[in-house]
Amino acid sequence: MPNISNRAQILPASPIRKLVPYADAAKSKGRKVYHLNIGQPDVATPPNALQAVRQSDFEVLAYAPSAGTNEYRAKLAKYYAEKVGTQLSPEDFITTTGASEALNFAMIACMNPGDELIVPEPFYANYNGFSIAGGIKVKPITASIDNGFALPPIQDFEQKITPQTKGILICNPSNPTGYLYSKEELLQLRDIVLRHNLFLFVDEVYRDFVYDDKQFHTVLNIEGIEDNVVVFDSISKRYSSCGGRIGALVSRNKEVTTSVMKLAQARLSPPTFGLIVAEAVLDAPANYVSDAILEYDRRRKLLIERLSAMDGVIAPTPGGAFYAFVQLPIDDSEKFCQWLLEEFEYNNATVMMAPGSGFYSTKGLGKQEVRIAYVLNENDLNNAMDCLEKALIMYNV
Amino acid sequence: MPNISNRAQILPASPIRKLVPYADAAKSKGRKVYHLNIGQPDVATPPNALQAVRQSDFEVLAYAPSAGTNEYRAKLAKYYAEKVGTQLSPEDFITTTGASEALNFAMIACMNPGDELIVPEPFYANYNGFSIAGGIKVKPITASIDNGFALPPIQDFEQKITPQTKGILICNPSNPTGYLYSKEELLQLRDIVLRHNLFLFVDEVYRDFVYDDKQFHTVLNIEGIEDNVVVFDSISKRYSSCGGRIGALVSRNKEVTTSVMKLAQARLSPPTFGLIVAEAVLDAPANYVSDAILEYDRRRKLLIERLSAMDGVIAPTPGGAFYAFVQLPIDDSEKFCQWLLEEFEYNNATVMMAPGSGFYSTKGLGKQEVRIAYVLNENDLNNAMDCLEKALIMYNV
Repeated sequence: MPNISNRAQILPASPIRKLVPYADAAKSKGRKVYHLNIGQPDVATPPNALQAVRQSDFEVLAYAPSAGTNEYRAKLAKYYAEKVGTQLSPEDFITTTGASEALNFAMIACMNPGDELIVPEPFYANYNGFSIAGGIKVKPITASIDNGFALPPIQDFEQKITPQTKGILICNPSNPTGYLYSKEELLQLRDIVLRHNLFLFVDEVYRDFVYDDKQFHTVLNIEGIEDNVVVFDSISKRYSSCGGRIGALVSRNKEVTTSVMKLAQARLSPPTFGLIVAEAVLDAPANYVSDAILEYDRRRKLLIERLSAMDGVIAPTPGGAFYAFVQLPIDDSEKFCQWLLEEFEYNNATVMMAPGSGFYSTKGLGKQEVRIAYVLNENDLNNAMDCLEKALIMYNV
Repeated sequence: MPNISNRAQILPASPIRKLVPYADAAKSKGRKVYHLNIGQPDVATPPNALQAVRQSDFEVLAYAPSAGTNEYRAKLAKYYAEKVGTQLSPEDFITTTGASEALNFAMIACMNPGDELIVPEPFYANYNGFSIAGGIKVKPITASIDNGFALPPIQDFEQKITPQTKGILICNPSNPTGYLYSKEELLQLRDIVLRHNLFLFVDEVYRDFVYDDKQFHTVLNIEGIEDNVVVFDSISKRYSSCGGRIGALVSRNKEVTTSVMKLAQARLSPPTFGLIVAEAVLDAPANYVSDAILEYDRRRKLLIERLSAMDGVIAPTPGGAFYAFVQLPIDDSEKFCQWLLEEFEYNNATVMMAPGSGFYSTKGLGKQEVRIAYVLNENDLNNAMDCLEKALIMYNV
C-alpha cells in the first residue's frame, strides 16, 4: 500500500470542524447544540441575491469566466472605490472560490516550498492547512491576551526574518481574536515589508465588522507598498453568503494577478450560482450591512458581559470581526470542547466551540483558550452562555 | 518589489482558456465564434436539478458539510453500485469543488514536493498547473496518434520509474484524445503499480461517454489495487453541470480519504447551490445520460467525417469522452489558433480550438495538433468545420 505524503501526515484537523462528528452524535440524541464553533452567521442572506438565483432562467449551468465576469470585476472596483475608499481597476480582482482559494492561490503564486511566512498567532486555523499543502513554513509571533492580541512589537518580527522569509500574513480585523489593527500598526508593517522586500498578505473579509466607533484601515490605502500587498476578500461574512463560495484576491501587483489568473484558469471557473449571488449582493439595500453590524454589536456586548461575569474567564473585548478569543479556567480546551458535546447537557442543550490550540502554531499554546463565534441571535447566545457557565462549574468539580 | 515564486514563473497558461481574450475581441467585432476549445456542453442541464435550486426556500446561504452531505454521499454510493457496478461506502466519497479540486487534493495528500508522477501524454492540460502548484514533477510517456493514442508499452512506464516515482495518472476515457482504455491495459497498469507500490490516479469524469458498443472499465473494479486507486469524478460533463462545481474524490484507501477530509475542512465547504444540483441530477430521468450520449455520438461521427475529408488532416476516431485530438497541416497550432481568432473569418464566423502543445509535457510536441471538443450541435459543428476547412486552405497559401 503506497504511503500518503509527509505533508498529509502533518496536516492538522481543523479545530473549527473536527468535532463535528461529536456534535452530530449529540444531535442524534435529541440534544440542541449551539454552534459557536464556526463563523456561519444566522443573518438572512440579502433576499435580492437569493431571488436572483431563483429567478435565473438559463437551461445550461455553464462554466463562468475563470476570474469572474468582467461585469462583476467592474462592480467590485466600483464597490471598493465607494465603500472601501480605494481606487482599483477591474483587473486587480480575481474572483476565487471563497477567500480560502484566494489564500491558496497567493501562497502558490508568491512563495516557494520552504519559504517562510510570518503570522501573528493565534491565527485563523486553516492558514495552517494551506501552508502545509503549499510547502510553506509558518513562523508564528505570539500575540498576548493581556493586551487583547495587539500586533506584537516590531522587533519580534525583525527577529524572525531570515533569508527564507517571503511574507507576513495578518487578518484585519482578526479571526480568531477580533483584534482591529490601527493605522500605526499597518505603517509599522509597511516599514518591515519594504525593508525586507516581503509580501504583505491581509485577510480583510471582516472589514465591515468594526465596533465602538473605531475605524478600519485597509492595507490597500497604505502608500508605498502597492506591489507588496495582496488582500483576500469574500462575500461570505459581509453578506451572510458562506455557501456561495465566492471570494476575491485583490492586488495591484501585475505579476501576482497574472500568475493567479493561470491558477484560476487551471481550475476553470468559480461556482456559477455563487457568482449570481455575488453580483446581486452588491445591490443589496444600503442598510443591509450596517443593520447586520448593529445586530452583531449587540451580540458582542452580550457575549463579553456574560463571559466577564464567569469566574476565571478572561475575555478581551473584540474591536472587530465576530469572534472572541477567550481564556477559560480549564486544563485542556480540546478535552473540554469534546466533553461539552459528549457528556454535558443543560436543559437538553450544549455548546460547540473551537479549541484554542488549533489557532496556534507554537505547540502547547492555547490549551486554556477557545474561539467563540457570536453568530447566533441574542436569545440563543444567552442560552449558550447559560450552558457554558454551568459547564465550567461542573467540569471543574 | 517582491518576486513571484519560481513555480509561478513556470506555470503554463491553460491552452483551453488562454486565447479567451482573442475570442472576446473577435466577438466584439460582431463575429460568431464556435467554441470547440472547452468541454462546455450545450446540452440542457437536467431540468429537475435547476428547478431544485430555483425552488429552494432557505433564507441563509450557509456552508455545506466539507465532504458533502451524508445524504449525498450515500446517494453516490448507491449510484456507483447501480450504474458503475462497484461497491463503495459513503465514506469513500469526498465531495469536491469540481474534479479539479479532487485532483489537487489527491496530489497534496499522496505526493511530496519533488515526487514524480507518470502521465501518458497528450494529457489534460490542467494536470500541469496542479502539478506545478503542488511541486510535483510530471514524467510524460508519449502516446502516438498512429495508434489512436493507446496506452504506451509497459516497458516505457518501467523505464520512467525512479525512487521518486509515486504514482501514475490516466484519464479514462481520455481528455484530450478520446482514447478508451481496455481492461487489459488497466491490468497492465495494476501490475506496475503493485510492483512499484504506486498510486494509480484515474480521472473518470467521462466514464459514460463511450461509443461503438465499446465497454468502459472502471479502475475501481480492478482487484488487488484497492489501496492504490484514487478516482476523480464530476457532475460537470455527465449532467452538463459545469458551473455547479461539484466533483468527487473516490478511494477505498482510508489514509487518503482521511487526509483529503482535512484539506476539505480547511477550505470549509463545496458550493451549496452546486450540491443541490448534484443531489438532484442523480434523480434525473434514466434516459437523460443515454440520450446525451446518442447526441454526442452523432456529433462525433460528423466531426470525424468532416475532418477526414480535409487534406492533410489526421483524425483518429475517439472511442470515448467528447474530444478529438487531431493533426492539422500547419506549422504551429498556437499561431494557427490565434490567427483563427484574430484574422480569419468565413461567413462572419470563426472557430476556437485548444492548441495541442499545451497538452504535452515534452517540449516541441503537439505543434501540429489541436484538441477539438465536440460540444456543439450538429448544425454549429458543421459550420465550425466549414470554417476550419476554409481556414486550412487560406492559412497554407
